[in-house]
Amino acid sequence: MCQLFGLSCNTASSVTVAFTGLSARGGRTGEHSDGFGLAFHDGVGCRLFIDENRASDSALAVFLRRLPIRAGTVLAHVRKATQGPVQLANCHPFLREWGGRYWSFCHNGNLLDFSPRLNGIHLPVGNTDSERAFCWLLQQLRERFRTRPAEGWRAFAPVLAELADQIARFGTFNFLLSDGQALYAYCGTQLSWLRRAHPFPVAQLVDDDLILDLRAANNPNDRMVLVATDPLTRNEPWSAFEPGPLRVFVRGDEVWPGAAEPTAQLLAERTNPVRRRLAATA
Amino acid sequence: MCQLFGLSCNTASSVTVAFTGLSARGGRTGEHSDGFGLAFHDGVGCRLFIDENRASDSALAVFLRRLPIRAGTVLAHVRKATQGPVQLANCHPFLREWGGRYWSFCHNGNLLDFSPRLNGIHLPVGNTDSERAFCWLLQQLRERFRTRPAEGWRAFAPVLAELADQIARFGTFNFLLSDGQALYAYCGTQLSWLRRAHPFPVAQLVDDDLILDLRAANNPNDRMVLVATDPLTRNEPWSAFEPGPLRVFVRGDEVWPGAAEPTAQLLAERTNPVRRRLAATA
Repeated sequence: MCQLFGLSCNTASSVTVAFTGLSARGGRTGEHSDGFGLAFHDGVGCRLFIDENRASDSALAVFLRRLPIRAGTVLAHVRKATQGPVQLANCHPFLREWGGRYWSFCHNGNLLDFSPRLNGIHLPVGNTDSERAFCWLLQQLRERFRTRPAEGWRAFAPVLAELADQIARFGTFNFLLSDGQALYAYCGTQLSWLRRAHPFPVAQLVDDDLILDLRAANNPNDRMVLVATDPLTRNEPWSAFEPGPLRVFVRGDEVWPGAAEPTAQLLAERTNPVRRRLAATA
Repeated sequence: MCQLFGLSCNTASSVTVAFTGLSARGGRTGEHSDGFGLAFHDGVGCRLFIDENRASDSALAVFLRRLPIRAGTVLAHVRKATQGPVQLANCHPFLREWGGRYWSFCHNGNLLDFSPRLNGIHLPVGNTDSERAFCWLLQQLRERFRTRPAEGWRAFAPVLAELADQIARFGTFNFLLSDGQALYAYCGTQLSWLRRAHPFPVAQLVDDDLILDLRAANNPNDRMVLVATDPLTRNEPWSAFEPGPLRVFVRGDEVWPGAAEPTAQLLAERTNPVRRRLAATA
């Protein structure tokens, strides 16, 4: 199994602190030492970093814990191999282009006997169940949408929700997916999330002594959603996902299947701290 | 216009010294300061690093000049924008998957009115002539080969040569392409190459005071081909390509359109230093 992390925010943000916590699980505080990767979606561009070395002490991980690369959506993964040997081609996130956008995908879980028919448009390069699932998801999206629809995530969300449920029948399937516009998160068994907005706290990592004063790092209008296999901070109100359905985050708001007007909802919650607190710790 | 660099070798090698020279052209010794990128093909896996900042002083470039990432085939590019603004999505190398392999591509030149029909299998994410050319090349390969042929580069080379000639009618077109198996190099106007083998020299960079003792860095059986827009070292016998046709390098040997038996050819040349010297400086 693996550790997932995702970020969606309305102001491009860095993940140096979150990745400091996550990467510790790649060999120091956790046994997920079979590689790691991050995808930074910056507009339509995407920076992908993958490495088959331990996230806790790989030179690339050391570099990425220090360099504040800012992005609107970030996916990260530290791997504990279940299917496929420890090698570069099996590191998540996987990246493909469809419809003039880069799509990134990472998975926590184990799919048994998942061998869907792949028509060759997207094929796995490595040999994980995860990459097969990603290729099949994109193939299905292509079959439903001949071109990228103008509605973007509004069109994709119900289709992806249905496809995710189909794959989840084959085993443990928690995943994060992004095309730079939205962060899609699916909980088969285990995933938590947190929404950060003003007033920002001082965050204390679970896996490291590091403390970050988010008040100084963010502006009052900034908001972001963090998703992780296990909560990364010890003093913030992380909430466990219920298994299924797919959830979608855009620019730091949950937009599906919940609120039709996320910004209005957020504003309403801001005027009612008690309700926000209850919602965030539910 | 831009600066290209490619490496093909029989033993996975690092490019820290070559990239030290190349990246200096990204703002210090050259005007190519609109981003850069490297693709390291390691088996079937591929590490891609791209950045829209100046290669001469970007934090990522500083890191990559120090970290000896070893790979069998490497592509690198420092950009001077002609078409498409300075942004991450326009940085080379571009990366796509076809046939279960990652393909990377970078271009030096300028294609005018090159707007081929793209069927949607591969679409540009950014807005450069270069990415359009890459998408069209892969689309054409898909149309000629429904699946990846067992012959690999032997099947691809004549087709790519023909396709490259077609694109070159639209303007300046020098490119490097790799699927991890082969390095394809096409010279429309300007490209040089160098073959290194035992006995290795002490290399002196053109763009930096750095000197590298290749005798200590390599074993007697190591061999490699370097391709660059302009020679990177001042004391080695770089040769200018003749414009066209496509040339193909595999594991440090030129395999097409020249020798059918590259290893036998190389062995013959090693027994005749004069001939090798003449060949390498021709």
